[in-house]
Amino acid sequence: MPFYALLLEYEGTPFRGWQRQVGGISIQEVLEEAAGKLKRGAAATTVAGRTDAGVHAAGQVVALELAAAFPAEQLAAALNYHLRPHPVSVLRAASAPPGWSPRFSAVRRTYRYVILNRPAPPALAAGRVWHVPQKLDAMAMAEAARPLLGRHDFSSFRAAGCQAKSALRTLDSLTVTRAEETIEITAAAKSFLYHQVRNMAGSLKLVGEGRWEPGRMAAVLAAADRRLAGPTAPAAGLTLLEVRYARDPFAPPSI
Amino acid sequence: MPFYALLLEYEGTPFRGWQRQVGGISIQEVLEEAAGKLKRGAAATTVAGRTDAGVHAAGQVVALELAAAFPAEQLAAALNYHLRPHPVSVLRAASAPPGWSPRFSAVRRTYRYVILNRPAPPALAAGRVWHVPQKLDAMAMAEAARPLLGRHDFSSFRAAGCQAKSALRTLDSLTVTRAEETIEITAAAKSFLYHQVRNMAGSLKLVGEGRWEPGRMAAVLAAADRRLAGPTAPAAGLTLLEVRYARDPFAPPSI
Repeated sequence: MPFYALLLEYEGTPFRGWQRQVGGISIQEVLEEAAGKLKRGAAATTVAGRTDAGVHAAGQVVALELAAAFPAEQLAAALNYHLRPHPVSVLRAASAPPGWSPRFSAVRRTYRYVILNRPAPPALAAGRVWHVPQKLDAMAMAEAARPLLGRHDFSSFRAAGCQAKSALRTLDSLTVTRAEETIEITAAAKSFLYHQVRNMAGSLKLVGEGRWEPGRMAAVLAAADRRLAGPTAPAAGLTLLEVRYARDPFAPPSI
Repeated sequence: MPFYALLLEYEGTPFRGWQRQVGGISIQEVLEEAAGKLKRGAAATTVAGRTDAGVHAAGQVVALELAAAFPAEQLAAALNYHLRPHPVSVLRAASAPPGWSPRFSAVRRTYRYVILNRPAPPALAAGRVWHVPQKLDAMAMAEAARPLLGRHDFSSFRAAGCQAKSALRTLDSLTVTRAEETIEITAAAKSFLYHQVRNMAGSLKLVGEGRWEPGRMAAVLAAADRRLAGPTAPAAGLTLLEVRYARDPFAPPSI
């Protein structure tokens, strides 16, 4: 079966998340339906990061199998034509390298939370930011984030529904920066537990509000107990920024 | 009548523009309705820039008259409460200085066009950018923009429906910059003719595509003939960024 790599941007607000499910449209569904119109027959996808309902992507990576071959250089434009009017856009498409998996070949995933930290609610960025009206201390949040770096048991930040066998993960990067009214929390790791980024962000917000001392974050991590961490941050404001591979699936083939 | 200055952010996509009109909701209408809920009685507004349908604002300035006084420090939050779920947000509110008019006291208005210049359509920024798939030469656009600076008869860039008595305007700034796939055209002047920014942007795009030599922009300006300029650029992508006053209406009163 012909097998392609796609780089995808989407606005998550109108979707029930990446994965097909009853009770609403998913990104997977609209993408597979668009692909099904190219070549009559089934189209199947697998994905680097199964984003939740309302979570956005600037650089999601998808493997697409088609029933019959389609010219890779025309694939992005053809899919975008059939994806209208959904807010899903194929930025790049390429023939997938042999043996490549968007999920298992990934070496780094980067997610970003954007917090709009001002009294007035968002208008221009509605649905794309987490609105926190009370002033947050981004320096304290950055300090609290530091002990989470490296390899740990992240059970405290793992959702009840997480299906991973082990809660051990290696967090490569977790930064908190402020520019005027916007705070960005950026997290990078080979892989994350289910809701790990949202649960870390929910706890960091408690530090930013002054309800937690920065040192409490390390204590909560060490306890490996979900009940001790903060609430799950809302989906709006979270974006899958980038997925990296040892060999870029979109790079032109070397000669 | 108590008289307030408001700083407003809005997403223009769902509106027929600033001004009340039949056949759809306007920003003026939803703001005046929200204000009418604070104090029973009429609320009236005047505005710095009457944005078109689909045009956004990050810093629109409005004068609001209420039937009875309302504490200025609670006004933004109270209006935002009643503005829900419309994508209109009051960023600041203050008692208006005596004799101040948001429109006639303005000394500078700044508008920005954002062009998404890549083959794939926008998903995350849909409605907020002008999508131009063919590659634009931003350097050529910047060169073409330069002769428009200063005081000129801008008849070539004036809409047929413009009600201004004179087409003479002084353009303080017109820049074109590129960052990766995004081109920004930023224009600042004390005031603009109707559709002037959109018509200048439409012509600059022709330069960017190579359909016009950069020097043609100056010739079109000199001809003072609307038929010679490019088409009006679409509303999506245009944002009223800022309105400046000799005395900032939101500054705390000096003692």
